[in-house]
Amino acid sequence: MEFKLTQTDKYSNARAGILSTAHGDITTPIFMPVGTAGSVKGVHMRELEFDIAAQIILGNTYHLYLRPGLDTIKQAGGLHKFNSWEKPILTDSGGYQVYSLAENRRINESGVTFKSHIDGSTHIFNPEGVIDIQRIIGADIIMAFDECTPYPCDFEYAKASMGMTHRWLERCCKRMDQSEALYGYEQNLFPIVQGSTYPDLRKESAEMIASFSREGNAIGGLSVGEPAEEMYAMTDMVCQVLAIDKPRYLMGVGTPENILESIALGIDMFDCVMPTRNGRNGMLFTSEGIINIKNEKWKNDNSLIDQNLDGYVSTTYSKAYLRHLIISKEILGSQIASIHNLTFYLWLVKEAGRHITKGDFSSWKNRMIKSVTNRI
Amino acid sequence: MEFKLTQTDKYSNARAGILSTAHGDITTPIFMPVGTAGSVKGVHMRELEFDIAAQIILGNTYHLYLRPGLDTIKQAGGLHKFNSWEKPILTDSGGYQVYSLAENRRINESGVTFKSHIDGSTHIFNPEGVIDIQRIIGADIIMAFDECTPYPCDFEYAKASMGMTHRWLERCCKRMDQSEALYGYEQNLFPIVQGSTYPDLRKESAEMIASFSREGNAIGGLSVGEPAEEMYAMTDMVCQVLAIDKPRYLMGVGTPENILESIALGIDMFDCVMPTRNGRNGMLFTSEGIINIKNEKWKNDNSLIDQNLDGYVSTTYSKAYLRHLIISKEILGSQIASIHNLTFYLWLVKEAGRHITKGDFSSWKNRMIKSVTNRI
Repeated sequence: MEFKLTQTDKYSNARAGILSTAHGDITTPIFMPVGTAGSVKGVHMRELEFDIAAQIILGNTYHLYLRPGLDTIKQAGGLHKFNSWEKPILTDSGGYQVYSLAENRRINESGVTFKSHIDGSTHIFNPEGVIDIQRIIGADIIMAFDECTPYPCDFEYAKASMGMTHRWLERCCKRMDQSEALYGYEQNLFPIVQGSTYPDLRKESAEMIASFSREGNAIGGLSVGEPAEEMYAMTDMVCQVLAIDKPRYLMGVGTPENILESIALGIDMFDCVMPTRNGRNGMLFTSEGIINIKNEKWKNDNSLIDQNLDGYVSTTYSKAYLRHLIISKEILGSQIASIHNLTFYLWLVKEAGRHITKGDFSSWKNRMIKSVTNRI
Repeated sequence: MEFKLTQTDKYSNARAGILSTAHGDITTPIFMPVGTAGSVKGVHMRELEFDIAAQIILGNTYHLYLRPGLDTIKQAGGLHKFNSWEKPILTDSGGYQVYSLAENRRINESGVTFKSHIDGSTHIFNPEGVIDIQRIIGADIIMAFDECTPYPCDFEYAKASMGMTHRWLERCCKRMDQSEALYGYEQNLFPIVQGSTYPDLRKESAEMIASFSREGNAIGGLSVGEPAEEMYAMTDMVCQVLAIDKPRYLMGVGTPENILESIALGIDMFDCVMPTRNGRNGMLFTSEGIINIKNEKWKNDNSLIDQNLDGYVSTTYSKAYLRHLIISKEILGSQIASIHNLTFYLWLVKEAGRHITKGDFSSWKNRMIKSVTNRI
């Protein structure tokens, strides 16, 4: 994997670059649609590629491991072959989902024991295991196994957890370096900075993670309920420590505003379920602001969903029609809203890259944040 | 509206033709996907047109009247404008849905009083009203208001109901001929033959319906639980009576086998929720037979859904992937199964037309019925 910075911004820490993987190049900054169980909900692969212009998607190790299961994915020749997505894939380590199970999991130094949300069966994830699983899934980018601390989190817990995440990272790296890709193409490991909202811990974790010199670096444990200002402060501090010439991935972020602010701090990669999950509930992100399409005011509004965007759904269906579909719980409503929101997110990061290259990112960003936070 | 027979089969009553409407030509025999509430569930308009090759879709008057409501449809300029489907649309009269409401409706000579399944509000459908509603929806083909009798149905009820359907037809025709299209293009009325499974009543009804000389004719009250042989016998008898040079529409039919047998009896148009509804539950119609994709046997089957069909989904996704999506209740599973099944249905009627034209329809039909009824 190669990462080439094509432009750095003079007035912020924003950067534009190209990340080259075995399944193709990714221009950064980039947003990665979330394909939890091997599918971005409501979206065909063709739509992801040509309408949304996605360049990389996410898969969730926890979900894929439980269903369809490793045997099926392996027999298909990996996730790319299984779901027909031929561009890059990143898989998380399963840590985040496992911790979300609350009382259905038990963590210790060796790993995590958890119960399946599907059938209650007991499973174990540990650093070596999740590397093996992600080898089988065949993601281009594999995430290290970490503990994602909640917010708020007391200092002692955060410190101890961070220490364990660092020790788990050693085990992940060892397994990664001693195992081979199963399908003949290169896979890359990204470690994850933790440390909750404590500057000292974040700095220590960033230094530790940077010292591993892996192919890219991620920031976890943010966007879990803390105020945006704390998230930006931690992200800023961590970006100062992480290598300049490696891609930086801010996990699980976020709103359009979060993404623009974090690009300014030096983040290159994002993922979030918001555009699809909120879309299915009728929340639309548009170039002119946020729309709750269920509102009465859109009932007879026959204008296009977003006339400033290209792409089939944004230039075909009207607000009134989408409102009807969402209110009637028609599947097509979820489809249209998801495709529209993802098209908007991908448009937004592409525009950010264009303005970084053009040299006016900061002023554009400030104007754009006004638009994207506007509730219309 | 013009209907031109291009070929009649020598060895059966099958025919191939072209039905010209204000929104374009339809080659017959044709299958019409059901777009209940203004959307064919899980299918984009682009997919209907280019992947499935649908030439006309159905809308349900009952559903559209309740939601989004006539005001919204009228303000959009009719259903074509509202849902962005620019090819022909046929609307049912609402009768079938209203009768399905069972205890929530009351029928008498003047019309039907019913309670909305959405909010329990009370509404009235009568022959004049449903013509007015369908004028507002703007369908190219409008169905007359009828009573669809259940199966079994005693003779006296069937006879009285048929008489009322005939009197309602007079009222529908009068309203149709005294009102005008709202959007500047021609709309056409199809009356409906009733008479349950009683040959005498069916003959009487067919003669009455034919005497109105409307633009096309429909057969209702079949495919409601009676044995297929009775359905074919009634269809055969009615086709002998209806005008040769008008399109014939067998409402709510059916399985691939039902469709092929009914084409042989002289039917030109079909609709059914089966390809989409059963698809969402994992039942696939393919050129090699019927598949229950949930079966364990498809778990690791990485072959295409139907290698004999063209179209994106049939040539992109594997059986194993679709099985995973359906079992995981992923939206994309419903989408793929619906598109595949509709692609198959449209392929089937197109092939039927091709073989009618070629002159070997009957032998092809007998071979094809073996394939399509095969459970694999």
